[in-house]
Amino acid sequence: MIIRPSELPVPKLQTYLQSAVAPRPIAFVSSIDAQGSVNLSPFSFFNMFSMNPPILIFSPSRRVRDNSTKHTLQNMLEVPEVVINIVSHSIVEKVSLASCDFPKGTNEFVKAGFTEVKSELVKPPRVAESPVSFECKVNEVVPLGKEGGAGNLVICEVLLMHIKEEILDAEGKIDPHKLDAVARMGQDYYCRASSESVFVVPKPNEKVGIGIDQIPMKIRNSTILTGNDLGRLGNIEKLPNEEAIKQFQSQNFWRDVSSKSDEELHRLAQQYLKDGKVEEAWKTLL
Amino acid sequence: MIIRPSELPVPKLQTYLQSAVAPRPIAFVSSIDAQGSVNLSPFSFFNMFSMNPPILIFSPSRRVRDNSTKHTLQNMLEVPEVVINIVSHSIVEKVSLASCDFPKGTNEFVKAGFTEVKSELVKPPRVAESPVSFECKVNEVVPLGKEGGAGNLVICEVLLMHIKEEILDAEGKIDPHKLDAVARMGQDYYCRASSESVFVVPKPNEKVGIGIDQIPMKIRNSTILTGNDLGRLGNIEKLPNEEAIKQFQSQNFWRDVSSKSDEELHRLAQQYLKDGKVEEAWKTLL
Repeated sequence: MIIRPSELPVPKLQTYLQSAVAPRPIAFVSSIDAQGSVNLSPFSFFNMFSMNPPILIFSPSRRVRDNSTKHTLQNMLEVPEVVINIVSHSIVEKVSLASCDFPKGTNEFVKAGFTEVKSELVKPPRVAESPVSFECKVNEVVPLGKEGGAGNLVICEVLLMHIKEEILDAEGKIDPHKLDAVARMGQDYYCRASSESVFVVPKPNEKVGIGIDQIPMKIRNSTILTGNDLGRLGNIEKLPNEEAIKQFQSQNFWRDVSSKSDEELHRLAQQYLKDGKVEEAWKTLL
Repeated sequence: MIIRPSELPVPKLQTYLQSAVAPRPIAFVSSIDAQGSVNLSPFSFFNMFSMNPPILIFSPSRRVRDNSTKHTLQNMLEVPEVVINIVSHSIVEKVSLASCDFPKGTNEFVKAGFTEVKSELVKPPRVAESPVSFECKVNEVVPLGKEGGAGNLVICEVLLMHIKEEILDAEGKIDPHKLDAVARMGQDYYCRASSESVFVVPKPNEKVGIGIDQIPMKIRNSTILTGNDLGRLGNIEKLPNEEAIKQFQSQNFWRDVSSKSDEELHRLAQQYLKDGKVEEAWKTLL
């Protein structure tokens, strides 16, 4: 199916874009106007974009239905400071409640049942219930258009980061299962990024894999090994040498294996890959 | 725990930022240089930021270790066009392989085992194995800094969107379970956004909830109802009237219920909320 954005009404295009670019992290943004009225609202057009300087960007769009702008954006132009709070599963329904179009001047901390904590470096308060909060100054607001549905990049530089101790692991790093973050998807869908949904792919780091083009055809054309298996195999820096293969295949257990078919050898290699034993997988296949 | 970015080495700060701002959608970007060499690389500093015009932004950062720039960024300055391909779980290991620092001129389609499909409107090819691909022109490249770790916003306008029919539901919308998208988290973690990890929070839309501040104290202070339960309760437009409550509580099943404790009533209401029956929950609680 092909979609030409110019030929589709904006709400329909929006549904396709939001369903395809997903899951999107959520910025739960606290802001303040010149009179000191606090606002709190979630935005899923959000991500980090730079480490040095540390830059987070979110986008309050112009409303599709009437081209009006959101209170958060108006506040940004009066007081260019925000706190970006991270959303864990335990608060997602209240965050959704805060996204209602309450009248100007409504404090969503009150409306959605959150606790204000005074920030150290910026005027807007942070959310006590959030596992992580970023105190930020707003470097720039960049409009991406003038019509309904146009985004506005709010370019935020992180001044201070608050992390709840309870989401750290033994090494002091953030444990994704303890963070239990939620992200926005298309329609009314959200994604919970913990438990079974979290998995590991070893990072290539600075070493360079041999690549799938260097995997012998017999292995590449396997009916057992999946694309993900081949990806993992291609990520090895160099193939084990004949010596190493011989040694591996001279072990006791191999006597039972060696009589097996290619199919069974590929299944054994696949099991090694599942266990993260890429060397062993290669020594089985070669 | 408090982190002041200026007091932390960039790689350490990076780990905290990437663990907290997660899960991040992945742009698997195909680009081309003036000589026609194709490049394919994943970026998780990525999201959509506007519907009208339809804008996607990703950021190839300067490398922290030596402040060098990535081939994708260099290509962008020569040929300002890209295809942004979406990453499903079935290709994640090959996508990770494509992120290796292969020498300039390497075609990662070949190295990581992907199939080039000629684009309709832009020069870089798209990835046949991706469930969704966006042909884009690059409107602007905005550097966010000059040091190692500095991001570069690549502001992309969607010209054409390709969607595989097999990921659509009966209504022609993208089914998140069929899309089976993966997203990047901190360290070596990824998130798979399908199956059990996907859940629904009904959108507030244009109606405005009564807010948690309008929920009677006795209910707000419940030891049974969670913050998420209260969020769902506060999302109702108006409370059921006495007539409706009386009618609800005059039903046969209520005779067994009415003798129960507050705790048991709250549990019953909680069950109604789990089933999406917010009106019934309120009629049980009031």
